[in-house]
Amino acid sequence: MLVLSDKSQKMPASPIRKLVPYADAAKQRGTKVYHLNIGQPDIESPNAVLEGLKNFPSKVVSYTHSEGTLEYRQALANYYNNRGIDVTEKDFIATLGGSEALLFIFGIIANPGDEIIIPEPFYANYNGFTCENDVNIVPVPSTIENNFGLPPVEEFAKKITDKTRAILICNPGNPTGYVYSKEELEQLKEIVLKHDIYLIADEVYAEYLYTEEPFTSVLSFPELKNHAIVIDSESKRFSLCGARSGAIVTRNQAFLDAAMRFAQARLSPVELSQYMATLAHQNVGTYFEDCRAEYLKRRDVLVNGLKQIPGVIVPNPKGAFYCMIQLPVDNAEKFAIWLLESFASNGETVMLAPGAGFYSTPNSGLQEVRLAYVLKEEDLVRSVEILKEALVQYPGTIR
Amino acid sequence: MLVLSDKSQKMPASPIRKLVPYADAAKQRGTKVYHLNIGQPDIESPNAVLEGLKNFPSKVVSYTHSEGTLEYRQALANYYNNRGIDVTEKDFIATLGGSEALLFIFGIIANPGDEIIIPEPFYANYNGFTCENDVNIVPVPSTIENNFGLPPVEEFAKKITDKTRAILICNPGNPTGYVYSKEELEQLKEIVLKHDIYLIADEVYAEYLYTEEPFTSVLSFPELKNHAIVIDSESKRFSLCGARSGAIVTRNQAFLDAAMRFAQARLSPVELSQYMATLAHQNVGTYFEDCRAEYLKRRDVLVNGLKQIPGVIVPNPKGAFYCMIQLPVDNAEKFAIWLLESFASNGETVMLAPGAGFYSTPNSGLQEVRLAYVLKEEDLVRSVEILKEALVQYPGTIR
Repeated sequence: MLVLSDKSQKMPASPIRKLVPYADAAKQRGTKVYHLNIGQPDIESPNAVLEGLKNFPSKVVSYTHSEGTLEYRQALANYYNNRGIDVTEKDFIATLGGSEALLFIFGIIANPGDEIIIPEPFYANYNGFTCENDVNIVPVPSTIENNFGLPPVEEFAKKITDKTRAILICNPGNPTGYVYSKEELEQLKEIVLKHDIYLIADEVYAEYLYTEEPFTSVLSFPELKNHAIVIDSESKRFSLCGARSGAIVTRNQAFLDAAMRFAQARLSPVELSQYMATLAHQNVGTYFEDCRAEYLKRRDVLVNGLKQIPGVIVPNPKGAFYCMIQLPVDNAEKFAIWLLESFASNGETVMLAPGAGFYSTPNSGLQEVRLAYVLKEEDLVRSVEILKEALVQYPGTIR
Repeated sequence: MLVLSDKSQKMPASPIRKLVPYADAAKQRGTKVYHLNIGQPDIESPNAVLEGLKNFPSKVVSYTHSEGTLEYRQALANYYNNRGIDVTEKDFIATLGGSEALLFIFGIIANPGDEIIIPEPFYANYNGFTCENDVNIVPVPSTIENNFGLPPVEEFAKKITDKTRAILICNPGNPTGYVYSKEELEQLKEIVLKHDIYLIADEVYAEYLYTEEPFTSVLSFPELKNHAIVIDSESKRFSLCGARSGAIVTRNQAFLDAAMRFAQARLSPVELSQYMATLAHQNVGTYFEDCRAEYLKRRDVLVNGLKQIPGVIVPNPKGAFYCMIQLPVDNAEKFAIWLLESFASNGETVMLAPGAGFYSTPNSGLQEVRLAYVLKEEDLVRSVEILKEALVQYPGTIR
C-alpha cells in the first residue's frame, strides 16, 4: 500500500492555514484585508543589497562551501563581535534560513521520542521541525498576566526527564514580543548546566528591542560554551525573508562537526543570498536604528490602540514585532474566520493568527490571537478601528 | 549529558571529505588541481538570469507561497508540457533544490526503520537524506560490465519486504551516466504496481542525454499516477547550482497535501531563485542544445581518452555529466589521496571522487572513481594525460 509516514500525518498545518480560503474569498468579494497575521515586513531590504544584485560578480551561480562562504561567516562573526560576543567564523554554519537551522539542531541533538522543553506560547513551526525529527515538545506555560515572561524555573525542573535534550527559547519572542532579562537567562543557564542539556536560543529578532535594557544572548555566558546553540537569520533583521539565509552559531565543536555533515548532505546554502546577507552586514549604516524607530512607532500605535478596546487584554511587548493579545470572544479562531467571512467595515477587514496554533497544550490560547505590526502606521490605526467595530458586532463577543 | 543523536553520528561524510585537506595542501604547495570530483559545471548560467538580477522588480525580498510562486510552477508545468508530460502547476511543490525534495520525500513516505531500494552505485547524498529520516537504504548492485544498467528485476523483487516503501532511481544517473530505457522503466513500473510502493525518480539531469533514444520520465506512465514522484532542480539544467531551486513533481494528491505541510513548516523557498529559475525557463532559447553539444564533446574527449589508458574500464555514459570508471589500482581512495599528496605532473594533478562512497554494500567500488566532465575540453585532455602518467608511477598499480 502507498503509505504516508506517521510524521507526515502528524505534521501540523500552519495556524492560519484554515483561514486562507476565507481570506481569498473575502478578497474575491472585493474586501480589503489587512494582514496582521504574518511576519512579512513591508520595510524595504537594505539598498546596498538591492544595488548589489545589479553587480553580482559571477557568471556561474555556483555551490558554496557547505558551511557557507568565508565572507558571509566573517561578516556574521564581525556583527557578533560588534555586539560584544566573542566568536569567529568557525563558530557558524550557514543555513537556509532559521528554518533549516532548527531542522538540523533537532536532528543533531535528539533521537526519536526525545523531548525538548519550550515555554509556550511558542513559534508555531517548532511543531513542524520537531515532528519531522520525531521529537516531542514539552511545553511550560507562560501567562499573559505576566507579559509571557519566563515561567518559574521550578516548572522547567518538573518537566525534565531522561529524555530531555534541551530547553528552547525564542528571544525576543515570537509570538509574544517578550524579551528575557539577563536574570531570567541566568536561571535558565543554571538549570541547563545542572542537568547538562542544551540551551537553544532563537535570537533572530535580536536587533528589534524597544527597551532600555540591552539584549543578552545566550552566547554571552562563557559557562555555556558547549551548551548554548543560537539560531540566527537575516530574514527579519534586514527584511530579507525571501532570501532564506541564516546560521547556526555555537562554540560546541562536536555539535559543529555533526552540523557540518548535515550541511554537506544538502551541498550548499544559497550563493546569492549569502552574497546579499554579506552586503547587508558590511553596509549596515543606520539600518537597524531606522527600522527600530519605525517598529517602535508601530508597536505604540497598535498596543495603545488595542488597549482602548473594551475587554481586550494587551501585554507590553518589548521586542520583535508581534503581540499576543486576549480577545473577549467565545473562540478566537471562530472570530478570525467570521472577520473574513461575515464582516466588513467600509469594505475592509483584518486577518488575525488564532492563538491556539502557538500552543501545544490542548485547549490553550483559545481566546488569543497573534498580531504582527509589520504594516505601516495608518494601516495599523485602521486595523484597530476595524477590530473594535468587529468586536461590537460579533455575535460571540463576551460582554 | 550533552547528547548527539544516533543519526547525527551515523550521518556519512561526503565521499570527498577525506580528500579535501590533501587538495588544500597540494594547492598550498603550488600544485594545480583539476577538479574531476564535483558536479559544479563551469558553464555560464543563462544570460536572461544574470540580466534579470539587474532588474529584480521588488524592494522587499519576501516570502513566497510555501509551495512556490505561481509563476515558477507555471513555468515548470509549461516545461514539462513541452516534453509531452501532462501536468499543471498544482502538481509541483517548489523546494530548496533537489536536496530538500529528497528530504521531504523520505520523511513523507517512510517511518523510522522503513526501507528504500536503490540500484547502486547511487548519488552519495541519498545516504544523508535517508539517515536524517532514520530510513534504511537497501541496495541492488548494478555492474560496470553492464554499463550500470538496470539490474534484473528479480533482484529488486528479492529485496522487497513489508518495510519497503519505494524504489528510487536517478535517471540519467549520477554517478553512472546511465540512462534507463523505456523497457527498463516498464519493468520497474510493473514491480512497483505489483507491490504498491512508490517509484521515486531523480530526473534532474533529464536535459542531458547523448543518445538518439528519447528520455522517458516516470511521469509519462498514466498507471503510475499515484506511484510516481519526481525530483527536479534547475541546478544542473541551467547551471544554477547555487540557487537551490527545485521541485517535487507528482500527481498523487495525498502526497502533495503532506508535502505542503512540510513546505509550510519552513515557510518559503527562495524568492530570488524562483525568479531566476522562471526567467531561465521563459527564455530558454537554445540553451539546452548548446550545453548538450558542449557536454557531448567533453564526454567524448574524456571517455575516449580514458579508454586509451591500459587497465582502465570505462562504461559508455549516455547522460548527465559523470562517468564511473574502474582503475587498475589496489584501492581507489588511496590512489586519489596519493594523487594529491605525492604526485604532480609538471606541477599539476587531478582530484577524483573515490567510488566506495557511492555504494552502501561494504567493500564495493573500491577500485572505482567518479569523474565529472564539467571542465572545458583542454582541461579534460590534460586531466587524462595526468591520470595516465600517475597510473604508471603509482606504486599500487596492478599490472
